Amino acid sequence: MVQGALRSGAAHRRTVFEMFARRLPETRRYGVVAGTERFLAALENFRFDSETLDYLSRADVVDDATLSWLADFRFSGNIWGYGEGECYFPGSPILVVEGSFAEACILETLALSIFNHDSAVASAASRMVTAAGGRPLIEMGGRRTHEESAVAAARAAYLTGFATTSNLEAGRRYEIPTAGTSAHSFTLLHDSERHAFQTQLDALGHGTTLLIDTYDVTRGVATGIELAGVDLGGVRIDSGDLGVLASQVRRQLDEKGAKNTRVIVTGDLDEYAIQALAVAPVDAYGVGTALVTGSGVPTASLVYKLVARAHGGGAHDPLLPVAKRSIGKPSRGGRKWSTRGLDDSGKATAEYVYDYKPKFGPLERPLLRHLVADGEIVGREPLGEARERHVRSVAELPVSAQRMSRGEPAIPTVFEQRVNA
Amino acid sequence: MVQGALRSGAAHRRTVFEMFARRLPETRRYGVVAGTERFLAALENFRFDSETLDYLSRADVVDDATLSWLADFRFSGNIWGYGEGECYFPGSPILVVEGSFAEACILETLALSIFNHDSAVASAASRMVTAAGGRPLIEMGGRRTHEESAVAAARAAYLTGFATTSNLEAGRRYEIPTAGTSAHSFTLLHDSERHAFQTQLDALGHGTTLLIDTYDVTRGVATGIELAGVDLGGVRIDSGDLGVLASQVRRQLDEKGAKNTRVIVTGDLDEYAIQALAVAPVDAYGVGTALVTGSGVPTASLVYKLVARAHGGGAHDPLLPVAKRSIGKPSRGGRKWSTRGLDDSGKATAEYVYDYKPKFGPLERPLLRHLVADGEIVGREPLGEARERHVRSVAELPVSAQRMSRGEPAIPTVFEQRVNA
Repeated sequence: MVQGALRSGAAHRRTVFEMFARRLPETRRYGVVAGTERFLAALENFRFDSETLDYLSRADVVDDATLSWLADFRFSGNIWGYGEGECYFPGSPILVVEGSFAEACILETLALSIFNHDSAVASAASRMVTAAGGRPLIEMGGRRTHEESAVAAARAAYLTGFATTSNLEAGRRYEIPTAGTSAHSFTLLHDSERHAFQTQLDALGHGTTLLIDTYDVTRGVATGIELAGVDLGGVRIDSGDLGVLASQVRRQLDEKGAKNTRVIVTGDLDEYAIQALAVAPVDAYGVGTALVTGSGVPTASLVYKLVARAHGGGAHDPLLPVAKRSIGKPSRGGRKWSTRGLDDSGKATAEYVYDYKPKFGPLERPLLRHLVADGEIVGREPLGEARERHVRSVAELPVSAQRMSRGEPAIPTVFEQRVNA
Repeated sequence: MVQGALRSGAAHRRTVFEMFARRLPETRRYGVVAGTERFLAALENFRFDSETLDYLSRADVVDDATLSWLADFRFSGNIWGYGEGECYFPGSPILVVEGSFAEACILETLALSIFNHDSAVASAASRMVTAAGGRPLIEMGGRRTHEESAVAAARAAYLTGFATTSNLEAGRRYEIPTAGTSAHSFTLLHDSERHAFQTQLDALGHGTTLLIDTYDVTRGVATGIELAGVDLGGVRIDSGDLGVLASQVRRQLDEKGAKNTRVIVTGDLDEYAIQALAVAPVDAYGVGTALVTGSGVPTASLVYKLVARAHGGGAHDPLLPVAKRSIGKPSRGGRKWSTRGLDDSGKATAEYVYDYKPKFGPLERPLLRHLVADGEIVGREPLGEARERHVRSVAELPVSAQRMSRGEPAIPTVFEQRVNA
C-alpha cells in the first residue's frame, strides 16, 4: 500500500486513522483499554533497520523508492488515545492517529497487535477482579500462552487489579509484585509429602504456601500444621470441588488454631467459577488459562480504519470524512472526539462520540489524551496510573457493569453528528 | 521449587518430566505438535544473565545458593519428542525430558508456553487446510494477536500447509512465502476507486489482487477489468455473503474473458466457513482471527508433569514411577515410549503408549526423536521437514480425522503397562 501510495503521491496526504471496536462480545458490559504504554514504547523504537530492509529488498516485497522511504521512516504525526485502564464501548475512538497516509497506515499492525491482545486480557481480567469481590487474584497463566504474550498478559492483569503474578519476567520488566507456588512435582520428587513440606518450610520459611492435594487433602493439611504450626502462611488446593474442599480445609485449620493460614484455590478458574466461590472461605484465587486467553474472547477485535483524509498533499489541507460503503461492515467517517457523559452523582450515563470537536459540558469527562505530539511521545506514564484510572473508570459505571451474565454494554454509545448550517 | 530442592538435595535426583495433553478439545480429532524448533532454538540460549540474576536477588525471589546455581545453569540432560508436525492424541508423550530435577523442572514454562501456543494454532490450521481441500490459504491474522505470537502463528500455519503469510517478519525469520493485500483505506485514500486501482496496478503490475468491495462489488470488478484487462491477477471480497458474491464475481469475470483472474475471499473465516464455501468458485482463502486464536481453542492445554525420579542422587540410580493420586487430575507415572500402530495398508489404528521400552513391531511407527543428547541439541531441522511430516501424518490417519464435527479422537490411545514378572 505504501508503494502504491508513494507512486500516486497520495502517500503524503494528511489522514486520520481510528482504532475502535465495532461491538463488544456479548459476555462483556465494557471493554478495557490496555497496551497504550507498550505501544508507545514500541513506537519509540519503530524503525526499519538494515537487516529488515535487506530482507524486503531480497524478497522483492517493495521497490527502491519504498525502501528508501522506509529507511527514513520516523513517525512525525499526532496520536491521541484513551488513557490506559479506561473502559471503552462500541465505537469509542480508543486511538486516533493523524499523519500522512504512509506513516499512519504503517502503524496499523503494531497498534492492533498490541491493543487487541492486551485489551482482550484486561477486559477478561477486570471481570475476574469484580467477581473476586476484593479477594486477591494471582496471575498464573504464563504456561498457557506464547512466552511473550504471557509477559504482556501479566501486565494487563495487574493493571485491572490483579494483586500479583507468577511471571518473574513480568516482575522484572514492569515491577509487578510476584508470587510463587510449588507444584505437585515438588512433592512427588521427595520421598514423602512430609519431607517435601519440611524442605519447603526450611527453604522459604513458615509463611510459604503448601500445595496439599497431591495425595490426600486432609492428611496434607494435618502434616502442614504439624510441621509449621499455626504460623503456616497458606495452603493451596488445585483440584476437586474447590468450594467443598475449601470449607473442609478452613474448618480443619480453624480447629487446629491456624486461623490466619490462608486458603488459596487454583485450577481452571474463570470469572464464573470465581463468583461461584464467593460464599466459600477462600482467601485468594490463582487464575491461569482463562486469564491469558481472554476467557472465551482471545482478541478484542479492534479495527484500525481510515476515517478522514485531505484532498491534496498540503500539511494544512482540510480533512474530508471517508467511510467504506459496501455491505456488512460499515464504518463512520470523520475524525472523532469523545466524552463520558455523567449524571449529577458522577455515574456514567453514556459514551458520547462526536464527529466534530465539541464544547465539553460540565457533565462530560473528555476521554482522549495526547499521546504523541508532532512525533514526540508525550503520553507515557507509570503502570500505577493506569491501575488507578481503571479503578475510577469501573467505579463510575452503573452497577449493571458488574453483571457476569450476557447482555448489553453498561452504557449506550451516542454518536453526535455535526449538523451543517 | 529449585531453592527448596537444592536445600534438601533432591534437586540433583535424576527425573523424567513429560509433556502431554490429558484430552483433545471436542472439536478436534487430532492435535498437531508445533513449536519444537522454536523450543530447541530457545533452549540453546536459555541462560540466566546478570541482569536477570540481579533482579531475582534484588526482589528477594531466591537465596544466594539458588542464584549461584542459576548463574551456572546449562541444560545437560536428554530430551526426546514427537517430530514437529506430527499428529498427537490424549496421553501422547509429546516431549520427554530427562535430567536432574532442578534442570528439568526449570524448563517447564519455556516448553509449555511455546508448545501450548504453537500447537493450538497448528491444530486449528490443519483443519482449515483440510476444509480448503487443496485451495491455497493465506495467513492474515497478525493484527488480532500479540505481535510476537503473530510471528509464531504464521510459522505454525505454514507448517500445517498454509501457502503464504501476510506477516513479513515471519517471512524474514522463517523464510515463509509472503503475500500482501491492500485494505479499504487504500481505496478511500484516493479520489476514486478507479484512481486507487490504477495506482495499485501501476505500482505492482497487473498480477496484483484488487480489493473490490469498498463501494459496490459489481462496479469494482468492472473497473478492475477495464483497467487491467484479462491479465488481472485477482480480486478480493472481504464482506457480505461470500459464497453468493464469489459466484456473481466469477460469472462477471468469465463473461469479460478474465478466466484466470482469481477470486480471493477473506473476512472472519474459520474451518466451518471455509468448508461451507467448498462449492463456491473461490481460488484462495485469507484467514485471520480464527487462525491465530486457535479457532475456539487458544491453548493446547498441554501439561508438563514429573512421571519418574530416582530415589538417590546418583547419575545411574534407577527411576521410580510417580504420579499425583488425588482426585480430579490423575496422571500416569513412569517414563513413556510411543508408537503409531498401523494396519496392513499403512493406516493408523491406534496410539500405543508404553511405560517400558518395547520391542517395536513391524506395524508400529516409533514416534520419539532424540532432540537433545546430554545437553547437546541434535534435533533441529528445516521447517520444510515438519511441513512434509505433517502431510504424511495426516494422510496416515483414518478418514474420520477429517470430519469437522465434534467427536472422538481419530484413533484411540492404548496404554501398554509392563506386567511385573
